[in-house]
Amino acid sequence: MKRSDRLIGMTEYVLEHPMQLISLPFFSERYQAAKSSISEDLTIMNNMLKEEGIGYLESIAGAAGGVRYIPKYNDQHSLTFLETLANRLEDPTRILPGGYLFMSDLLGEPKTVRNIGRLFATAFSHLDIEAVVTVATKGIPIAYAVAAFLNVPVIIVRRDPKITEGSTVSINYVSGSSRKIQTMVLTKRSLKNGTKVCIIDDFMKAGGTIDGMKSLLKEFNAEVKGIGVLAEAEDEEDERVVTDYLSLLQISNVDVKNAKIDVSLGNYFDYVN
Amino acid sequence: MKRSDRLIGMTEYVLEHPMQLISLPFFSERYQAAKSSISEDLTIMNNMLKEEGIGYLESIAGAAGGVRYIPKYNDQHSLTFLETLANRLEDPTRILPGGYLFMSDLLGEPKTVRNIGRLFATAFSHLDIEAVVTVATKGIPIAYAVAAFLNVPVIIVRRDPKITEGSTVSINYVSGSSRKIQTMVLTKRSLKNGTKVCIIDDFMKAGGTIDGMKSLLKEFNAEVKGIGVLAEAEDEEDERVVTDYLSLLQISNVDVKNAKIDVSLGNYFDYVN
Repeated sequence: MKRSDRLIGMTEYVLEHPMQLISLPFFSERYQAAKSSISEDLTIMNNMLKEEGIGYLESIAGAAGGVRYIPKYNDQHSLTFLETLANRLEDPTRILPGGYLFMSDLLGEPKTVRNIGRLFATAFSHLDIEAVVTVATKGIPIAYAVAAFLNVPVIIVRRDPKITEGSTVSINYVSGSSRKIQTMVLTKRSLKNGTKVCIIDDFMKAGGTIDGMKSLLKEFNAEVKGIGVLAEAEDEEDERVVTDYLSLLQISNVDVKNAKIDVSLGNYFDYVN
Repeated sequence: MKRSDRLIGMTEYVLEHPMQLISLPFFSERYQAAKSSISEDLTIMNNMLKEEGIGYLESIAGAAGGVRYIPKYNDQHSLTFLETLANRLEDPTRILPGGYLFMSDLLGEPKTVRNIGRLFATAFSHLDIEAVVTVATKGIPIAYAVAAFLNVPVIIVRRDPKITEGSTVSINYVSGSSRKIQTMVLTKRSLKNGTKVCIIDDFMKAGGTIDGMKSLLKEFNAEVKGIGVLAEAEDEEDERVVTDYLSLLQISNVDVKNAKIDVSLGNYFDYVN
């Protein structure tokens, strides 16, 4: 097989297996090529991934070694993506009664969701995260996108126990913005004791939901290594019960009367740089 | 830029943009290469994608032409994947009270979910689908995986209206297996009139939920071009209210007493061949 053919196959394989150690012998056998050729291919690939701003190959030396694709999105790509997203969110027809913002169309776009996931993975890839935790429903697609890049499973906390899930652990928590008491449940067998996790959600006002998830995760002795939200509401900053988090966007001045919203960058760039 | 560098970048781009028309001038400019070189690159890529069994490049001639990556998974890959999945589901510790099956761990694996999506996309890629519709919660990740390969948005039908969604259309339907009356809602602005859709869900017993979705979609004059479920329960076949669907797996003889389940292939291969 020619190098050009091999590179197409290897690129596909590497991109489909982020964060996973791939040994040289694996590729060597798969494409019937000498290890030295595979090694050269990987050098070319590493340079090109960096050039494209979508990550790099980490080399692990030794007999059990190989390469791992680390999906780091460069700042320029991230900024372009976030600015476009912010502009789209500033559309005043998105304002809903109660000062909420319609985002379902954006969160329904697989490409947008994948890029959001890429940014969180960029920020969290060095944290040895073993699972991504989210709460139903809107955080789910984002959580899967992050998990795909981190090569870990997704655990979904539910607001209602389902008969199809088996035994569960539940907690009550106070929703920060509405001050209502709510319930959250997590199936016992879905999370091993002591797992390192990150929490992902679409939106954070005062942070009550995320605080509730932290309490629930404590019951599983999980270690919360990172918290990421797509958008945070600036207006709720004073009442916030969660402080150490990563936000991609910040929504402020949702003015229902004058049909105006301001959407700016969150703390993403402080976090990754 | 050398061909080897360019092929890595182009492979990444093509795989990230399935079903999307990409013009030769786009690549020509992106990689500063002659159109004839790009054309050769695409021929190499097309052959290699076929060789790897993950699809092909469709060429569209003319001034507005280019190539489109059609994500067709070959039968051998599909069979290997489905057999592994069936084996994993046959684990008797998955049996839950009521004859349900614990599947959340499998549906929590981004790679598994992505492959499930790949199979549905393989079956549906020629149907000009414009949106993937699912119902909260378990179908969501599968729906996104399908939508990513079909390059269309996801529309989520909810069982509870949320204040953050704006005005909705709702219907009542009878759940086929439990005979209970349930409600489903879809936000008005989430689906344009007359859209061609496919319905995706994780599990089908008698099909009441999917039938409910069909009724709801009728209110939007949507055209249901395909229905796909990960697993169907064989035992409910006689009472089934939905008949024209694609299933990847079939679950039968869930024997709680003797801790035994049979999981076999669904009608996928009849459908794609």
